[in-house]
Amino acid sequence: MTTTAHGTAALLSIGDELTLGQTLDTNSKWIASALADLGIVTVEHVTVPDDLEAHAGTLRRLASKVDLIVSTGGLGPTADDLTRQALAEAVGEALVEDPVSMAQVRAWFTGRGREMPAINAVQALRPASAVALQNLHGTAPGLMASIGSCEVFCLPGPPGEARPMWSSCVVPRLRPPPGRTVRTRVLHTFGIGESDLATRLGGLMARDRSPLLGTTASGGVVSCRLRYEGPLSREEADALMETAAREVRARAGEFVFGEGDVTLPDAVLGLAQAAGQTVGVVESCTGGMLGQMLTDPAGASTVFMGGLVTYSNGMKTALAGVEAAILAEGGPGAVSEEAAAAMARGGLARLGVDHCLAVTGIAGPGGGSAGKPVGTVWIALASRGRDVDARRFRMSGARGAVRDWACKAALAMLRQRLAGVGPVKLLRQEHP
Amino acid sequence: MTTTAHGTAALLSIGDELTLGQTLDTNSKWIASALADLGIVTVEHVTVPDDLEAHAGTLRRLASKVDLIVSTGGLGPTADDLTRQALAEAVGEALVEDPVSMAQVRAWFTGRGREMPAINAVQALRPASAVALQNLHGTAPGLMASIGSCEVFCLPGPPGEARPMWSSCVVPRLRPPPGRTVRTRVLHTFGIGESDLATRLGGLMARDRSPLLGTTASGGVVSCRLRYEGPLSREEADALMETAAREVRARAGEFVFGEGDVTLPDAVLGLAQAAGQTVGVVESCTGGMLGQMLTDPAGASTVFMGGLVTYSNGMKTALAGVEAAILAEGGPGAVSEEAAAAMARGGLARLGVDHCLAVTGIAGPGGGSAGKPVGTVWIALASRGRDVDARRFRMSGARGAVRDWACKAALAMLRQRLAGVGPVKLLRQEHP
Repeated sequence: MTTTAHGTAALLSIGDELTLGQTLDTNSKWIASALADLGIVTVEHVTVPDDLEAHAGTLRRLASKVDLIVSTGGLGPTADDLTRQALAEAVGEALVEDPVSMAQVRAWFTGRGREMPAINAVQALRPASAVALQNLHGTAPGLMASIGSCEVFCLPGPPGEARPMWSSCVVPRLRPPPGRTVRTRVLHTFGIGESDLATRLGGLMARDRSPLLGTTASGGVVSCRLRYEGPLSREEADALMETAAREVRARAGEFVFGEGDVTLPDAVLGLAQAAGQTVGVVESCTGGMLGQMLTDPAGASTVFMGGLVTYSNGMKTALAGVEAAILAEGGPGAVSEEAAAAMARGGLARLGVDHCLAVTGIAGPGGGSAGKPVGTVWIALASRGRDVDARRFRMSGARGAVRDWACKAALAMLRQRLAGVGPVKLLRQEHP
Repeated sequence: MTTTAHGTAALLSIGDELTLGQTLDTNSKWIASALADLGIVTVEHVTVPDDLEAHAGTLRRLASKVDLIVSTGGLGPTADDLTRQALAEAVGEALVEDPVSMAQVRAWFTGRGREMPAINAVQALRPASAVALQNLHGTAPGLMASIGSCEVFCLPGPPGEARPMWSSCVVPRLRPPPGRTVRTRVLHTFGIGESDLATRLGGLMARDRSPLLGTTASGGVVSCRLRYEGPLSREEADALMETAAREVRARAGEFVFGEGDVTLPDAVLGLAQAAGQTVGVVESCTGGMLGQMLTDPAGASTVFMGGLVTYSNGMKTALAGVEAAILAEGGPGAVSEEAAAAMARGGLARLGVDHCLAVTGIAGPGGGSAGKPVGTVWIALASRGRDVDARRFRMSGARGAVRDWACKAALAMLRQRLAGVGPVKLLRQEHP
């Protein structure tokens, strides 16, 4: 094993299903993020097919360029799993059976009352000088080897197996460079467009500034990414980052809902929890997505009590008490200020919560009209002792994007109320 | 412009937020999939940071290897958006202003009653010989250029902008190789493990067979990927694929729920729609996720009527009519066969549907006990005139994975009932 520091890293994902677009690679994101937190900079992600030559060739190319390679995939038991062979070829060694791995693979099956299928035996193979990494959540052991001065860690593809192996077997063996500090911070906004945010940030985004500030838009969330890389101590770098983060908040604070891993639901739940208040939902076009988002964080149960999914008009009346006249021919209809407000008020009363969000809209692709085109969404927020806050939005994009953005806009409305800012007009809000 | 066929492709994603793991790249998947459908094989995906040298160098490396490069990202208006410069450097030309692009960028803002921020002017730049691609969904025009004999298309990063530009500007300019046929098919299973499936498939998975058969597991769905590449006509290749697909179904048919883009919700909705039956849900630990999944496909409204999100115990009684004694101290509790069955029966009656699924469990990370560890989930299916089908599962993984798998297991139970197979025991089912 080499002993140089791991200054730069490359990630390699393996599989025809990835290169051909049948499966989404989610491993590279969290591995790169974890490396950055340790001060190791990922300079390239590569995905190659289940092809021995391409796989081994890419390992060799990356090994000549970076100090560390982390690969995922290709360790399964089937004939298209070629990571063991590719690593052996890149290292220049033959494959040997690892007796400990063999015992572990076998034990994984016997512990579940099953016999090991014969094909799983190949999972115990490793290049002669490589070290096997134990997998406690599946049958595929990982591998660690050196190609020249570059260290390579090979993890299984399923995130449920790769993540625990990462924590227990890889992190303890990493050697971040001692003389360099890397710090990143991300502030998340919702409700402002990327150009408008960049205009507000102005000179803070100059490419010669330190920390470097960039923006990224993803599903309506526009994030401000701060990044320091240089000789300062961690404490000095953190102080510099803090000053920059304060500048960002000073210029766009009313739209900033959180930092780092904090999501919009986290922000809303945190504020409601601090205030000792409860939340419920009444959903039509989102079909349960808003409730799902609000229960995504652990511990949601102190705030989120429940909800009504009133997908059909009949359910809007039966479950939420929306007056039939609102929904009847000639009335304002299911996608209207009246319907949204009635859903929110009905939910507030029937769920017995402090705040109730209601969403009704036309997610598409069908169902639009001249007066109410696809993407039209009414969102209402009813809170005890307060006027209902009802807003009309015009979302763009496909069905999934309309639903996702609608849920986030609803959460942003509740966040404004809980945080005591606003009502601030949100991007895509048309009325009032 | 060159005129050779586009036999092989590489995809390039650009952005510090991607290499550092702050954002998930979702573009590469759908672009690779669309290329495969056209018979163009993607042989590598690469992600590089916002770094001019790495970006231009990767363009040159890939251009010497493939016929076609599709890049996403780096076309925004801010200083960290370097695709225009990197392409100019790789092509060896200076940047010039494209007057049509300038007019379009300006019109995008004026059409929305806003003035164009000054920083957006850079978006109208292109390498001298490049062609600008119109963006109807944002401010960033795309670019098309040649690096030697390789053609490069640069699309904006946001999928909502990249997808329409792909369809309108890229697809019409692609030239799939005439003498080669590429066909792919994917059959999806749920409820069987990957090793067990591979054992059933046996020799069908040999690496020298045509079509080639591989398996991939993702979130509980194990997919069988069939792929033909060779000289056969499309019709001959399709016949070969059909024979292979039938073999797969013969060996694992009871777990196959669909092909291609068909999801578990699609499969359930299709069967229910064909039978003219309606579906409702009562959700505890999934918080709305099951309803969200069932309303993800357009047209769900003919089948899915609505649901009750009974996250708190109080809601289970108030909304679904679960007897308080079940939930009280000393009773079987909220995560029990009794509670799940009562939720399903209550939902069936109160929602007035033909089938009602109920889910209650311990998603974690807290809340587990020796008798009911984290991951324990009871799922019940009540249908008019049928016995309740209640099953206990033990899911593994983190909170999100437990919830996701629970929803899919619920859908699989309903699929079995609607399809008239089973009840077939599902992976991770512990009782009965």
